[in-house]
Amino acid sequence: MALWDGRFSGDTDALVARFSESISFDRRLYRQDIQGSTAHVRMLARCGIIPPADADAIVAELARLQQDIEGGKVEFEERLEDIHMNLESRLIERLGDSGARVHTARSRNDQVGTDVRLYLREEIDAIRRLLQALQASLVGLADAHRDVILPGFTHLQHAQPVLLAHHLLAYVEMLARDDERLVDARRRVNRLPLGAGALAGTTLPIDRHSVAAELGFEETLRNSMDAVSDRDFMVELLAALSLIMTHLSRLSEDLILWSSQEFAFIELDDAFCTGSSLMPQKKNPDIAELTRGKTGRVYGALVTLLTVMKGLPLGYNRDLQEDKEPVFDAIDTVKAALAVYAPMIAGARVNGARMAAAAADPALMATDLAEQLVRLGVPFRDAHRQVGRFVAYCRDRGIGLDEADLAAMRTCIPQATEDCLTLFDARRSVMARDSYGGTAPRRVAEQLDFWRARLERHE
Amino acid sequence: MALWDGRFSGDTDALVARFSESISFDRRLYRQDIQGSTAHVRMLARCGIIPPADADAIVAELARLQQDIEGGKVEFEERLEDIHMNLESRLIERLGDSGARVHTARSRNDQVGTDVRLYLREEIDAIRRLLQALQASLVGLADAHRDVILPGFTHLQHAQPVLLAHHLLAYVEMLARDDERLVDARRRVNRLPLGAGALAGTTLPIDRHSVAAELGFEETLRNSMDAVSDRDFMVELLAALSLIMTHLSRLSEDLILWSSQEFAFIELDDAFCTGSSLMPQKKNPDIAELTRGKTGRVYGALVTLLTVMKGLPLGYNRDLQEDKEPVFDAIDTVKAALAVYAPMIAGARVNGARMAAAAADPALMATDLAEQLVRLGVPFRDAHRQVGRFVAYCRDRGIGLDEADLAAMRTCIPQATEDCLTLFDARRSVMARDSYGGTAPRRVAEQLDFWRARLERHE
Amino acid sequence: MALWDGRFSGDTDALVARFSESISFDRRLYRQDIQGSTAHVRMLARCGIIPPADADAIVAELARLQQDIEGGKVEFEERLEDIHMNLESRLIERLGDSGARVHTARSRNDQVGTDVRLYLREEIDAIRRLLQALQASLVGLADAHRDVILPGFTHLQHAQPVLLAHHLLAYVEMLARDDERLVDARRRVNRLPLGAGALAGTTLPIDRHSVAAELGFEETLRNSMDAVSDRDFMVELLAALSLIMTHLSRLSEDLILWSSQEFAFIELDDAFCTGSSLMPQKKNPDIAELTRGKTGRVYGALVTLLTVMKGLPLGYNRDLQEDKEPVFDAIDTVKAALAVYAPMIAGARVNGARMAAAAADPALMATDLAEQLVRLGVPFRDAHRQVGRFVAYCRDRGIGLDEADLAAMRTCIPQATEDCLTLFDARRSVMARDSYGGTAPRRVAEQLDFWRARLERHE
Amino acid sequence: MALWDGRFSGDTDALVARFSESISFDRRLYRQDIQGSTAHVRMLARCGIIPPADADAIVAELARLQQDIEGGKVEFEERLEDIHMNLESRLIERLGDSGARVHTARSRNDQVGTDVRLYLREEIDAIRRLLQALQASLVGLADAHRDVILPGFTHLQHAQPVLLAHHLLAYVEMLARDDERLVDARRRVNRLPLGAGALAGTTLPIDRHSVAAELGFEETLRNSMDAVSDRDFMVELLAALSLIMTHLSRLSEDLILWSSQEFAFIELDDAFCTGSSLMPQKKNPDIAELTRGKTGRVYGALVTLLTVMKGLPLGYNRDLQEDKEPVFDAIDTVKAALAVYAPMIAGARVNGARMAAAAADPALMATDLAEQLVRLGVPFRDAHRQVGRFVAYCRDRGIGLDEADLAAMRTCIPQATEDCLTLFDARRSVMARDSYGGTAPRRVAEQLDFWRARLERHE
Repeated sequence: MALWDGRFSGDTDALVARFSESISFDRRLYRQDIQGSTAHVRMLARCGIIPPADADAIVAELARLQQDIEGGKVEFEERLEDIHMNLESRLIERLGDSGARVHTARSRNDQVGTDVRLYLREEIDAIRRLLQALQASLVGLADAHRDVILPGFTHLQHAQPVLLAHHLLAYVEMLARDDERLVDARRRVNRLPLGAGALAGTTLPIDRHSVAAELGFEETLRNSMDAVSDRDFMVELLAALSLIMTHLSRLSEDLILWSSQEFAFIELDDAFCTGSSLMPQKKNPDIAELTRGKTGRVYGALVTLLTVMKGLPLGYNRDLQEDKEPVFDAIDTVKAALAVYAPMIAGARVNGARMAAAAADPALMATDLAEQLVRLGVPFRDAHRQVGRFVAYCRDRGIGLDEADLAAMRTCIPQATEDCLTLFDARRSVMARDSYGGTAPRRVAEQLDFWRARLERHE
Repeated sequence: MALWDGRFSGDTDALVARFSESISFDRRLYRQDIQGSTAHVRMLARCGIIPPADADAIVAELARLQQDIEGGKVEFEERLEDIHMNLESRLIERLGDSGARVHTARSRNDQVGTDVRLYLREEIDAIRRLLQALQASLVGLADAHRDVILPGFTHLQHAQPVLLAHHLLAYVEMLARDDERLVDARRRVNRLPLGAGALAGTTLPIDRHSVAAELGFEETLRNSMDAVSDRDFMVELLAALSLIMTHLSRLSEDLILWSSQEFAFIELDDAFCTGSSLMPQKKNPDIAELTRGKTGRVYGALVTLLTVMKGLPLGYNRDLQEDKEPVFDAIDTVKAALAVYAPMIAGARVNGARMAAAAADPALMATDLAEQLVRLGVPFRDAHRQVGRFVAYCRDRGIGLDEADLAAMRTCIPQATEDCLTLFDARRSVMARDSYGGTAPRRVAEQLDFWRARLERHE
Repeated sequence: MALWDGRFSGDTDALVARFSESISFDRRLYRQDIQGSTAHVRMLARCGIIPPADADAIVAELARLQQDIEGGKVEFEERLEDIHMNLESRLIERLGDSGARVHTARSRNDQVGTDVRLYLREEIDAIRRLLQALQASLVGLADAHRDVILPGFTHLQHAQPVLLAHHLLAYVEMLARDDERLVDARRRVNRLPLGAGALAGTTLPIDRHSVAAELGFEETLRNSMDAVSDRDFMVELLAALSLIMTHLSRLSEDLILWSSQEFAFIELDDAFCTGSSLMPQKKNPDIAELTRGKTGRVYGALVTLLTVMKGLPLGYNRDLQEDKEPVFDAIDTVKAALAVYAPMIAGARVNGARMAAAAADPALMATDLAEQLVRLGVPFRDAHRQVGRFVAYCRDRGIGLDEADLAAMRTCIPQATEDCLTLFDARRSVMARDSYGGTAPRRVAEQLDFWRARLERHE
Repeated sequence: MALWDGRFSGDTDALVARFSESISFDRRLYRQDIQGSTAHVRMLARCGIIPPADADAIVAELARLQQDIEGGKVEFEERLEDIHMNLESRLIERLGDSGARVHTARSRNDQVGTDVRLYLREEIDAIRRLLQALQASLVGLADAHRDVILPGFTHLQHAQPVLLAHHLLAYVEMLARDDERLVDARRRVNRLPLGAGALAGTTLPIDRHSVAAELGFEETLRNSMDAVSDRDFMVELLAALSLIMTHLSRLSEDLILWSSQEFAFIELDDAFCTGSSLMPQKKNPDIAELTRGKTGRVYGALVTLLTVMKGLPLGYNRDLQEDKEPVFDAIDTVKAALAVYAPMIAGARVNGARMAAAAADPALMATDLAEQLVRLGVPFRDAHRQVGRFVAYCRDRGIGLDEADLAAMRTCIPQATEDCLTLFDARRSVMARDSYGGTAPRRVAEQLDFWRARLERHE
């Protein structure tokens, strides 16, 4: 007889322990756990719930414990499940009765929420600094090549000439919105769950607001059941991180294209590429490729947590333990990508001549001609049609738009004037796009000034 | 010979047109397209780019066109691809030369961005109103059953008694954060791309800020390349909508559980259920189930747009046309779910007796006993251990915690006092959880007042 | 007083009906519903459960009903919820008592499962034909350009020369696996749920196997509870469709790159591009871009259904109604993309000269030199190092690898022979990669023959 | 001056190395890498590409290296990037010139593909065994409670009585389809890429088919460019694993519901729960909750890899390095969940009395009555309506369906007979659902026999 007669081996306990432990990943929160416990026991003493001497002993021992952990002297144990029990059990071991008071008026449900929020608050700040460093790199590269013109692309086809600085500043804008979103998300992270207990609050006379103040939380969560079971601040952060990766994946695509033999618009520094001793032309933009690829894992982390949360009834459910790994991994990924991107951009070499050559095709100035006709009173749709006819005329004759004379132009565009013949110059075209937000050097210089000032403020 | 000899039929054109059209879904933006064009031509006239008379004619005709559309007199045509060309071509048809001036100094790239942002701004406001209506329903139901106690659940196991109002207000908190996120997202929606042209701005002397002012945009986008190619405000909105659905899926789960024969905590109104004439006990909570299911399509919409954006090089790419359907579908889904949820909650019948009976088990008050011992000076971990022993003692004897006398209790809990015997009452337990955010009636009443005041302000 | 006093309007019923109806999308299943009902009533008569005359009347009327629907004479009604009730109610209207027998021994739960499976079976077959047509186009294009060489890319950098036909056949392989997966998925689709009833089977003496046989199902599902609540065959199909889109997105990327001014490797036919009458050089590869973008919506559909299914308890849940829209949309998307792709590939113009020029760089033959040294007995790692040194040597002197003489080569590669000087030719290199699966013309010709034969078999 | 002046620190190299290394996770493939290299060098010797003595030395040293790794004697180095370079460099260190021959006629691109496929083949087999063990547990539990009846649920409402064994066998069916999918996926995994080189094959006279035979691959991949850049077999596997988790999440939901105080249908063994020494009634079904939660990470892994693949041009791209971590994590998760589930199911205690009581409500037999009327010749829709009327009649009078006499029944159901009064018994009802796939004991027994036989065959 068979598999189902229940000879399940004695290693079930080990399997279950392994399946349900979290110390392998929540150990990362040791510092926040200590920080939260320190504020908690101080409050307990202030409120007369535990003796001041015990609080002092706990606070001092927690500080020592942190030193020991950072000195590599503490081995966390899987059998103690998580970081909370690992730290509490050591405290009791060292302090006896005093240590046994640390877990008064709290549960692991509100404790882990507090730890995670403290952690995310720091990480958000760190990511913001990295975002700003990358913005600074982009502004620096833009600034150093203020005169470089390249084709602006739509549909990956040459469209109109633009300044390289204008192109790069588009990414600075994206990252600025990412930064805004982090600031917004941080407000919802920075609210205190501690004191919510397992789900319903506590019967002891605690003072949550003072804990919030000590730990720098802007608000104290108003509903204990919500406080212990909600993870929407983590989903929101994952969504914001996903957008950062979206933006980096787009920048990566540009860099990969520009590094190809066909484009040859830029050269990334060797430090950010792998070469091949065999194939000299091969200098692979690995960092850009890996970043583009890592976009997937951050999207995946977002889907993971959304899936975890879907359809959970109210109150803490153990499913929520699955919140941390995707968030930690996404944070690590985004930080690492930003950290390598900033110096990579700073060290990129621009091939301005290749860019300029690609932007020189007079056909890229066809829109300039149509807009000139508008200035002469031609309704835009008609101007558009006439220029189209002129373009076809030139193509049929195998000449560039800049090679037709006025008479020829007038066969297609009756109102054409001498001025119209002077438009087919990329630099002139760029200078003319002087509308707010446009690519004209004056406009781009304004933007460069704006960003330099803003980024310096942040330092 | 075979498939590859190229007998591809003459219906290729039709296939391609069908594949690439967007009028079947962007027709929804007709009003915003008219609104944007109206502001645009007014500006063009103000800036001397087109004659004032032409602008007036266009503005008047756009108003008539809107009436005609709303009167069902306009047939949109697939061959004209999208809403922009459908409207422009009608304008030219009706106005000739004047109409031919409407598309001056803009492209469809900045035009569609403007339309979508106007549209989303309205929809965000509409969703916020629906969120608040659902909050009001929840507050109303909570208010009407201030005294009802049910078991608070963790791990879907009875944990501690809580007020039904407290449980319901947890959802009010979640929805409040959803509302905050919509407000934040709206700031990034409410920025004007118009005037960015195809990607580089225009050579004509437009005034984008005045258009922004007329259309109520808070900012004018600073970089034309970013303005036409970014969709992060849509991803951000989809993430916020996904969280709304997450919250509704959790509420749905609670309602489905509570409607089961086993729980029987509530009864939803017949209008929100399907019955079965065969099986009288069958009253299916279809709306809750469908809402839980529809969570999937909003998550799916988020993944769709993130995938679309991944790795796109800068500048407009036609992939971006795939932005609208997921966003429209997610908006429709969230609005519909909120719209049915508000009256469903308002009409739910609460079976307070069943809830109370489930909460009456004295074992749910074990934590109260441990916290009482803390008050008597016992370190919490010890208190916890002693109460555990007492619980086992009672279980072994087949009695409830409230059936042991003081002597019996003292065999496990040496410091137990008479007071300890009085703790096994759900109402007393609820009243005692008086910490900020806790379930005590006083705390919950404060919260009810807070929410009523805030929701009335919104009306 | 306020929102919560319950003035929920009388249009709740309309809201609820709209929220829960499915006729707007399951009408698509009318033919399968009729097909299933026809087989079902024939069986009921055979088993003596309903009178043969009634069965005959129903079968005849169902055929008429199908004609009426296809003739546009039937208006489906939202109030009748779904396609099943719309058809049954019409049958009863027309046939009275006989019609009232059609729903004997079945429920909508097993009925809709049957309809969907019949539908998917057909669609899988249709998608397979489209896949094969695209394979045929690729084989045709490959065949027509057997001699064209282009650089094989890794990291979007030139790596080694390959035949264009070899590159194109890589996509034929991917699509072949897609086809295999559809065949596998079809086996799990092609199983009959009908007769499972609401969830537990029926007390009437039905014969499910004969229905399965009549409808062409390969198996009859063995467990009634599983039969009505499982949707894994739909998830599996969505995963297979996602992979088809993955492959098309990669092919799209290649086409978009190759259509850029920088690559200029191919020109897509005008029918599959949008031009711009303004900018003659602009011929946007819209179909490829849209296909790459539409990848997102198929991935999104997969996530939608996975999310719907997560955590549902056993038995039919109304959430399952959310299965159809994502699946229908994904099928429509994949079919449309394949249908436009086949003629687009067939009509693509190859710029063999540009490709050849890009592949001519002697540096691409560095691996050939290293492998030649292996033939001369040099261990590969040493050969690799020596060739690397030689490459640097040439680079430092600004010469191509083919411009060094034997003496020069020997300064880096002691064992170099005259033969080594002849390797720097792309065609020779391609011919030499003659391993199974390699890019040598002989190998590629074998593959072309293989695919032509296999695709002809399918016709 | 500011952030952008390029003071990027000297630790860039470390950042880049950390960002791009894979040894931290691909070390898991050491055994497969050795296995692949062993077969490869044997082939090289057979084909006369390297000296037999060198091949022998390499093979022997690889075996020693494996022992050393397994003995914990090898420290992998991040600076050597990946498992391939870590092993090759050790080989060269130990063997000199012979070792330098191991990488002949292959690249890391085809090597890693081979390693991963060997690895996945093993893991698929391991997962299949675990699936079968869980099926065996379910069959065992079903078998041990053949007589237990519980309500079958639809919409989480009582619908019709079913056998517990029938309910459990529904999961056995789901897992059987999972197993089928793994078998199908394995066919596409089990194809050899080795010999594809970097992308184009090799100029050396290798024999790929013999390597395939030695390593047990069923096929040799036909196109070298496809062979090195495709990952669809990994996506397919992730989709299959996602469905396994979908099924486990559903089973988890059932177990969590059944473990609640309200249902109390089962009791999971203490080993798979966490209790609380405070709250005796609390026995949290943690393993089921965690499994439901872990569904998210497997879905997330699928989204990760799909995102990575979207839009990659042909040929190896470094993005592909991001394939392994999601696949490894998903495999580990699925294996761990299956491994704890099998003994958890085997050890579950069934509360048959609670189940029976819930199933005893005569209203659950209303369908039986309607089908009885069909037997008496009443058209089903009429029968359905009459029974509905009877149900309302009883409800209005506050009696059970089994408490009305024949006269009372006939006021609603004119054709009712004495037999109709005997139907309101759950066991009779279950016995009557004797259609193929139905819940009748005879049918379920057949299924139990079928599964026991099949599972024993697998042992």
